[in-house]
Amino acid sequence: MVSNATVQLGHGSGGTMMRRLIDEVFLEAFDAPELHAGDDAGIAPLPPTGRIALSTDTFVVTPHTFPGGDIGRLAVCGTVNDVATSGARVRYLSCGFVIEEGFPLDDLRRICASMAAAAREAHVAIITGDTKVVERGGADGIYINTAGVGEVPEGVTLSGAACRPGDAVLVSGTLGDHGIAVMSVREGLAFSTDIESDAAPLNGLIADVLAAAPHTRCFRDPTRGGLASTLNEFVTASGVEIELDEAAIPVRPAVRAACDMLGYDPLQVANEGKMVAVVPADEAEPALAAMRANRYGADAAIIGTVREAAPTGPAVLVRTPWGSSRILDMLVGEQLPRIC
Amino acid sequence: MVSNATVQLGHGSGGTMMRRLIDEVFLEAFDAPELHAGDDAGIAPLPPTGRIALSTDTFVVTPHTFPGGDIGRLAVCGTVNDVATSGARVRYLSCGFVIEEGFPLDDLRRICASMAAAAREAHVAIITGDTKVVERGGADGIYINTAGVGEVPEGVTLSGAACRPGDAVLVSGTLGDHGIAVMSVREGLAFSTDIESDAAPLNGLIADVLAAAPHTRCFRDPTRGGLASTLNEFVTASGVEIELDEAAIPVRPAVRAACDMLGYDPLQVANEGKMVAVVPADEAEPALAAMRANRYGADAAIIGTVREAAPTGPAVLVRTPWGSSRILDMLVGEQLPRIC
Repeated sequence: MVSNATVQLGHGSGGTMMRRLIDEVFLEAFDAPELHAGDDAGIAPLPPTGRIALSTDTFVVTPHTFPGGDIGRLAVCGTVNDVATSGARVRYLSCGFVIEEGFPLDDLRRICASMAAAAREAHVAIITGDTKVVERGGADGIYINTAGVGEVPEGVTLSGAACRPGDAVLVSGTLGDHGIAVMSVREGLAFSTDIESDAAPLNGLIADVLAAAPHTRCFRDPTRGGLASTLNEFVTASGVEIELDEAAIPVRPAVRAACDMLGYDPLQVANEGKMVAVVPADEAEPALAAMRANRYGADAAIIGTVREAAPTGPAVLVRTPWGSSRILDMLVGEQLPRIC
Repeated sequence: MVSNATVQLGHGSGGTMMRRLIDEVFLEAFDAPELHAGDDAGIAPLPPTGRIALSTDTFVVTPHTFPGGDIGRLAVCGTVNDVATSGARVRYLSCGFVIEEGFPLDDLRRICASMAAAAREAHVAIITGDTKVVERGGADGIYINTAGVGEVPEGVTLSGAACRPGDAVLVSGTLGDHGIAVMSVREGLAFSTDIESDAAPLNGLIADVLAAAPHTRCFRDPTRGGLASTLNEFVTASGVEIELDEAAIPVRPAVRAACDMLGYDPLQVANEGKMVAVVPADEAEPALAAMRANRYGADAAIIGTVREAAPTGPAVLVRTPWGSSRILDMLVGEQLPRIC
């Protein structure tokens, strides 16, 4: 029956159809006691440190499934990583679906199963949610918003404004994988089989680095706009310059080849399972070792140094293997829409 | 210039256009220090009670502006009310926009100003956000997700499962206003000038009721599915029956007339500024007085009583002025899509 196989407007009505959707799809996938309570807000314990971190992301990626992941895994990992960058212990997620009428229920189940698996991996619980159904043409299948919350441990104050001359810049692995993986399957390009999205929850990696490098200045996951946006945000907030050693920046050959072909800079392409960290020079090696010991940090590298800003102002420079330097700007305009 | 007057795909790129959108629209409207910090998560103090409440809603209402409110006011009030129903003190909101390419920037500014005004009224701060831009046809102008968080005071445990025989059922004002207001402007119906949406933040009203009626069992805002869904959720969760006195239920004559014309039951129509409360019998009058003393509770009424469930199971009954009773069911299917 069509009415059983696809999402209908009635599934967003607040009535009996919505009740069934919640019971048979969401509660089946997200088995948290806070959800089973059935109240409008999820109530849950939070260690009382006196500060919380809150972050949100909406995921509109197309296609919904791509090599290495899907919109569900992305929706959990993206927000977990954003909250974790603050040094907070990520505990809970909310989840808001906007679903287009006619969306297959089996696809929704698969996406929810993927979200649940990623949440288990990240040790977070989805404790509250909302579903809206819009008419055909009102959305591109499904959009997923997640918001995440966690407590910030006492004494932890990480900020993109905390970078100081002499600090080291690290990245937890190869750059550009996610953007090129999505791009390849969307455009049907020949390199599609070689490249997988890196989508992964990195709260564990961040905890490992913080334990090894307790004076870490900041973390950020280089998603839209890639490493270029992340580092430009850091230099602007801190009033410094960052010089990268291009030869040290890990990029898979297949990603580099795809970028060359498409005219993209891999440093401006989105990642969903990588973390940039800025740490004091004397904690760079312990931080690197901590990253490499983590399952998501095998290809971690020290890629640059923070310096005093030049009189021309904060900037990110890339020193090429041939000794020359270029300025790494933020992306202007848009190259890869709907990447996350 | 068109590129300055409407939202472009580049505004969602993570690059310089997005930076400008954040600076010139969002930071202009939502002036919180946590946002100005520019990090991926908003860090903010939260009184350490050991428990938080988290809730989320995505708003897809169309049209974006309607008598008495707009999607921005709704996006703040809806989530504030959902968090507040738990008895939590609502503190912070996240905000996730999905915007269709070509959406007028002036409309976005107006919506943000409306959100900011509602947030000020509710004494909450928007401390983190996200923006995605999708191609033309990928969304119906704008969708807004908000998630809200607050601390649950010690000793407060409200739940739809806590209703007991003898309890009184209260509502804070007239029912059906929001749904009919949106419906009227959407369908161009003649009664449109008479009816305004009730969209309002009710965290203050809830605090007032809790102070006056400290043994309150539960609150819920009867949004999609209206009073019918809210009370059916309560009776199912608590294993009880609720009998309503139809003559006591406040409904504006214009709303009743519109419902009669359209074949709707006003008890199944969405509200966005009303609160249902179940309280012990001896706290009913103090709760009522507290509601009526609040600016959003002038038309509050005691509308029913909780009883033991009949052998046939939990149910909501409506006793008519003529002495007969009917069962008030949850909405089946959908009557008013995109109402919030």
